[in-house]
Amino acid sequence: MTDDVQNRSMVQDTLAAAPPEASYAALYRDELLERVLPFWLKHSKDEQHGGYYTCLLRDGRVFDTDKFMWLQGREVWCFSYMYNNVAPREEWLQMALHGAAFMEKYGRDAAGNWYFSLTADGRPLTQPYNIFSDCFAAMAFAALDKAAPDDRYKEIAVSTFKNILQRKDNWKGVYSKAYAGTRPLKGFSLPMILCNLSLELEHLLGAQQVNELIPAVIHEVMEVFYQPAHGLIVENVYADGRFSDSFDGRLLNPGHAIEAMWFIMDLGQRLQDKALVRKACDIMLHTLEYGWDKEQGGIFYFMDLLGHPPQQLEWDQKLWWVHVEALVALSKGYALTGDERCRQWFETVHRYTWQHFRDEQHGEWFGYLNRKGEVLLQLKGGKWKGCFHVPRALYQVWKTWEQLSQ
Amino acid sequence: MTDDVQNRSMVQDTLAAAPPEASYAALYRDELLERVLPFWLKHSKDEQHGGYYTCLLRDGRVFDTDKFMWLQGREVWCFSYMYNNVAPREEWLQMALHGAAFMEKYGRDAAGNWYFSLTADGRPLTQPYNIFSDCFAAMAFAALDKAAPDDRYKEIAVSTFKNILQRKDNWKGVYSKAYAGTRPLKGFSLPMILCNLSLELEHLLGAQQVNELIPAVIHEVMEVFYQPAHGLIVENVYADGRFSDSFDGRLLNPGHAIEAMWFIMDLGQRLQDKALVRKACDIMLHTLEYGWDKEQGGIFYFMDLLGHPPQQLEWDQKLWWVHVEALVALSKGYALTGDERCRQWFETVHRYTWQHFRDEQHGEWFGYLNRKGEVLLQLKGGKWKGCFHVPRALYQVWKTWEQLSQ
Repeated sequence: MTDDVQNRSMVQDTLAAAPPEASYAALYRDELLERVLPFWLKHSKDEQHGGYYTCLLRDGRVFDTDKFMWLQGREVWCFSYMYNNVAPREEWLQMALHGAAFMEKYGRDAAGNWYFSLTADGRPLTQPYNIFSDCFAAMAFAALDKAAPDDRYKEIAVSTFKNILQRKDNWKGVYSKAYAGTRPLKGFSLPMILCNLSLELEHLLGAQQVNELIPAVIHEVMEVFYQPAHGLIVENVYADGRFSDSFDGRLLNPGHAIEAMWFIMDLGQRLQDKALVRKACDIMLHTLEYGWDKEQGGIFYFMDLLGHPPQQLEWDQKLWWVHVEALVALSKGYALTGDERCRQWFETVHRYTWQHFRDEQHGEWFGYLNRKGEVLLQLKGGKWKGCFHVPRALYQVWKTWEQLSQ
Repeated sequence: MTDDVQNRSMVQDTLAAAPPEASYAALYRDELLERVLPFWLKHSKDEQHGGYYTCLLRDGRVFDTDKFMWLQGREVWCFSYMYNNVAPREEWLQMALHGAAFMEKYGRDAAGNWYFSLTADGRPLTQPYNIFSDCFAAMAFAALDKAAPDDRYKEIAVSTFKNILQRKDNWKGVYSKAYAGTRPLKGFSLPMILCNLSLELEHLLGAQQVNELIPAVIHEVMEVFYQPAHGLIVENVYADGRFSDSFDGRLLNPGHAIEAMWFIMDLGQRLQDKALVRKACDIMLHTLEYGWDKEQGGIFYFMDLLGHPPQQLEWDQKLWWVHVEALVALSKGYALTGDERCRQWFETVHRYTWQHFRDEQHGEWFGYLNRKGEVLLQLKGGKWKGCFHVPRALYQVWKTWEQLSQ
């Protein structure tokens, strides 16, 4: 616990003087370049079989060797993205290529669907039941193709993207446990990711295809899943858009909605649609106010739109991705609208996040806190946490505040 | 919070004088008859569509109307069992018949598999992907057939049981996401439940069939899933019995193992096998010592055999069923072996359980506490908690201490 106390007091010193724009930029840049990317470079590379280990203890030691395709794809994307956007460092490119080779060799079934998980040496463990493996694979190869252009990478990214579009209305396929027809629900995750994915693949798909795709996904996110009476986005609605008064239909995931709002702000910027940016910023702020734990601080993981007990036992936990995505959304909201509420909330979430998730001693951030903000799992990566949300958010916040300081 | 404080102080008064055997018996009997069964009788009956509501708030108000077949079957079983074993009260029989009529009419698909869930009015919502729906349906109709003998009930119980045995080695069937062959694991749940289910159905199956079935399930539980090097039972092993160093293979569920040990003690009594009872008692005590939270009290929900971070975010929560099953196992262990450790542990778990789970104000018990023992969800029933563990345990503890006091 001494480490934690020391960690917190150091961060608190940094925070004592509310830093101006340029200080935020430097803080987030240094954390990314000196403490987060080095952690993954040092600990996650599987030199023997290729690919990445992601189940890493606090100090980086591997505790499980399974390879989850979400996280393989996300790490390839991350190092490619940093190579493309921060600096063309050879070690970043080599790290991306290392993961991509493993994915290309072992990642797909005969029909081109991406498995959910593999053994360390690449044998399939879990069937391609989850289309988000495909989403992150498409993102990975699209970003890698920018870093090291190759027709094979282009082909993998584009064919995977086409496959996602084909499967999107019934992506669970044979793995769905729902009895067809009784309560036909659709989920928020896929349209929300397509907002981001279409921009990530624009250099391969072409502006025209992206332009055709965008209005439908914006409509889904901002009009179908958004519940105007509450000002909140639900995770599931009936296929025809109606609200479903059921566990799934009442489910709120504030972090998910907040993350989606910065995807929408990015689309709003691309379309030069100020009203869309404004609306996304307002929904983001309202979701944050609603999802913020007024007693203990931090953002709840799950809630129920009608205030009933949620099904998810982990509902009151504080997760890293929720908080770092909020930092991105608030930075972008502030930069694009100048709304002072974004700046104030940014300071609140920044303080909570750096105090509770950051690990001064070993680099990378903790992922899972209990409601009080105490570390729940002593891991830096696992089945769902890898090299993705923390570095992406640090980059986005760094660049946004850098721009604000100019 | 005033209610909680009052509740705790009243229970603490009761606990101040460590009660002798007869007092424990009276305490558990009164709780069952005056505070728990009345809660379900009053709040869970769906007069409009038949069957039971199980998603009930602290005061019994319905917050969701879906019907989960596990819980429909368990409630039919519970009221039938109380009718058969406590007293032939007409309202208990009527309550059991009420749920059974709904189950019989809507519960199964054309092949006789039990759906996982239905809408309030009986339309199938979730496919029969989960064989435990079938287990609790077989238990329900077997117990009801004792209360109100009927060839239809016999037929449903026996055909469901046969179907379970046919499906048992690949019960997930088309709903399995595992890639066949890479890591063929089998789970502890089914052999563990078959220990109990075979005794529940003995009057229908006959002693001979039960005698044929028992040795295999005892072997599975006590020799295959039990890891002698650690003295603990894991939730999953390779099909050939080997330990698997993976998230699933390392998973411990202390409450599950403790519950299984009283099923084994029941089988040991039936077989008059004192060594088996002794071994089950020892494993139970060791699991409890291992799973007990030395800092905050209570029994952890999930752990990892090798001490790694578990995958389950709810790992440190304190669940009602874990604690009440431990009370049953400790009572039976004490009654059958006289081991003083059982008595001491019973007092410790009794004190924790009555202080934290019991609700003086509205009857029935809370289900989900955080690590510190604070109520996490203000519900008395939901998707997984119904009229089952609390009344069954109260009955078992009552009867065991009653016997000890004679």
